Amino acid sequence: MEQHIPVDLGDRSYDVRIGSGLLSAVGSIVGEQGYSRAAVVTETTVSPLYAAALTESLRAGGVEVFTVAFPAGEEHKTLAVASTLIDGLLNRRPPVDRRTLVVALGGGVAGDMAGFVAAVTLRGLRWLQCPTSLLADVDASTGGKTGVDHAAGKNLIGSFHQPAGVVIDVETLRTLPRAELANGMAECVKHAVIRDAALLDFLDEHAAALTVSGPDRRLAFDGDLMVELIARNVSIKASVVSADELESGIRAHLNYGHTIGHAVEAAAGYGAIRHGEAISLGMAAENHIAVARGLLTAEEAQRIEDVLDSLQLPVRKEGLDPAEIWEIMQHDKKALGGKIRMVLPSAVGSVDIYDDLTENEVAGAVAFLRESGSS
Amino acid sequence: MEQHIPVDLGDRSYDVRIGSGLLSAVGSIVGEQGYSRAAVVTETTVSPLYAAALTESLRAGGVEVFTVAFPAGEEHKTLAVASTLIDGLLNRRPPVDRRTLVVALGGGVAGDMAGFVAAVTLRGLRWLQCPTSLLADVDASTGGKTGVDHAAGKNLIGSFHQPAGVVIDVETLRTLPRAELANGMAECVKHAVIRDAALLDFLDEHAAALTVSGPDRRLAFDGDLMVELIARNVSIKASVVSADELESGIRAHLNYGHTIGHAVEAAAGYGAIRHGEAISLGMAAENHIAVARGLLTAEEAQRIEDVLDSLQLPVRKEGLDPAEIWEIMQHDKKALGGKIRMVLPSAVGSVDIYDDLTENEVAGAVAFLRESGSS
Repeated sequence: MEQHIPVDLGDRSYDVRIGSGLLSAVGSIVGEQGYSRAAVVTETTVSPLYAAALTESLRAGGVEVFTVAFPAGEEHKTLAVASTLIDGLLNRRPPVDRRTLVVALGGGVAGDMAGFVAAVTLRGLRWLQCPTSLLADVDASTGGKTGVDHAAGKNLIGSFHQPAGVVIDVETLRTLPRAELANGMAECVKHAVIRDAALLDFLDEHAAALTVSGPDRRLAFDGDLMVELIARNVSIKASVVSADELESGIRAHLNYGHTIGHAVEAAAGYGAIRHGEAISLGMAAENHIAVARGLLTAEEAQRIEDVLDSLQLPVRKEGLDPAEIWEIMQHDKKALGGKIRMVLPSAVGSVDIYDDLTENEVAGAVAFLRESGSS
Repeated sequence: MEQHIPVDLGDRSYDVRIGSGLLSAVGSIVGEQGYSRAAVVTETTVSPLYAAALTESLRAGGVEVFTVAFPAGEEHKTLAVASTLIDGLLNRRPPVDRRTLVVALGGGVAGDMAGFVAAVTLRGLRWLQCPTSLLADVDASTGGKTGVDHAAGKNLIGSFHQPAGVVIDVETLRTLPRAELANGMAECVKHAVIRDAALLDFLDEHAAALTVSGPDRRLAFDGDLMVELIARNVSIKASVVSADELESGIRAHLNYGHTIGHAVEAAAGYGAIRHGEAISLGMAAENHIAVARGLLTAEEAQRIEDVLDSLQLPVRKEGLDPAEIWEIMQHDKKALGGKIRMVLPSAVGSVDIYDDLTENEVAGAVAFLRESGSS
């Protein structure tokens, strides 16, 4: 099974292809598009697993290839490391030119980093995204956000730079740690809550089958089921992004779970907690506020928590400091003039944006996370 | 006299305002647009002259202001310096947000740098350009090119990021060194040759009046004449940019004089020769190729040289090495797969793009520059 999801952005439109074994098809996908060369930007953990298949495929498609790699990990997603990757492209002989395709191979960090490198090298090179984690597949692959972190916060430096295409090979997910797969599932739950109640049913029904382990620590999920999961999520993301490319309006719906989630992630220290875990906690906390406001029923909040739990995601966490969380939220780049926006659900499948959040509500939500809850 | 030139780029359209004393009007221009704060990005030479007027005006318009400055000079137009300016924005307390306007105050380097900082901070802040050199007024102010230099070449790192507006105060030109004014005149001649024969007549007629010195080393040009000169040039640039925002087609016409000019600049070492001087030499050299190909008459080439000369721009230079110039041209970011594109005039006001340039032709043009010519 292979699925193509169009991302409709006028003259910046592209397709997201999802299937099994697609890394070996990249050469034939881009071979006819006039690229003379490809610069594969990848991370050290992914490179030994998948760079060879990708590189062979590109060469077979008539495209010269070279690779620049950076150390895996969010702590390396900095302007300084991006600068060394840019050096790798610009110091190449012969030098890269506007017919050079940047290919991002790896998880979300590789995509953000390679996309940013592509965005600013020669004022914008075309780039292809080959994500290798579920989180990157369902989230970062669609929308063109690129960037690096700054001491003052995550993703504070970057640009919107839509890729020329996205190729998702679900086979690359089989080497993911289960916890890393769960990380991506958090965004799937988010998509369900903001747009698609049927997707929550799908996750509920297939949670076990989507996360089952096989021999040799490889994941043994059903490939077609995974393609379907990713395609449904990419469709939701694509429809939101198409309606609001530069995040001036409803694209903010995608921040459901992220206002508190990002603050939880920052408070823990980057790397101390997975992004998906933080977002799972963020959704639980924001649901608590929605319930307290009478927007969402306690039953629906509980159902969302149950699905998160069945996907091995946390919904409670000890040791969080409400004052610290509130302080960090003030510095979020989406805050406007000190006002914090939050996306709250009124039902599974429906959310709205609020900007009248109080410190008290956040304190209540953080206290709720610290309870030894039902999960 | 005040002129407004619209730059038509769909939802990225903006106006270029040109007049006398406009720096003091910036606050009222942006005051109604919902910006909470302005980050003035400027260079150390310009800041003591003009930052106070700009800052006062912004404050009077109800906008909070802070300033980040960097050392003047092309050698500081680097990713490393941009990174410290970004730090200056992101480490600010309270932090900058999406209602912060970046204001570029200074010459081309300040505009390129501030525009790039705006482009990548929080994935794109709005920015206002207040150029203070003739070169920046007639060239960089219009078109949204931003960026920094790299060891491998000029402007190799950057993005297209259109400003929210441009405010040109011709009074700031009175403190320019005459040679710096001439620097901008080179781009005016370029615009005339690619699009507007009447502009060459205008330059020819008013060369002395536009460059006349007054007391205290201040320039004593007629303000209205300068406003007209800049407005005519911005109109030409705006029409080219509107037709081809991302430089995939006829925007390349603006590279007339720049293919060889950039190489001459790089061979001299950045800072050793002014950009406009290099472009003046580039136009003379490229005209030589056009004449040799039978595209342009020797009389027209001579007329262009005469106008350049009357504007105090060089058309001959000793010591250039043809092999070095050719080598540098290969690495220009506009070269495609090793092929060098050049823009050649067939008459004053009309140019075309050629990509069949030979090393021999370039060697001939460089030899021509080395002659002790008519000028």
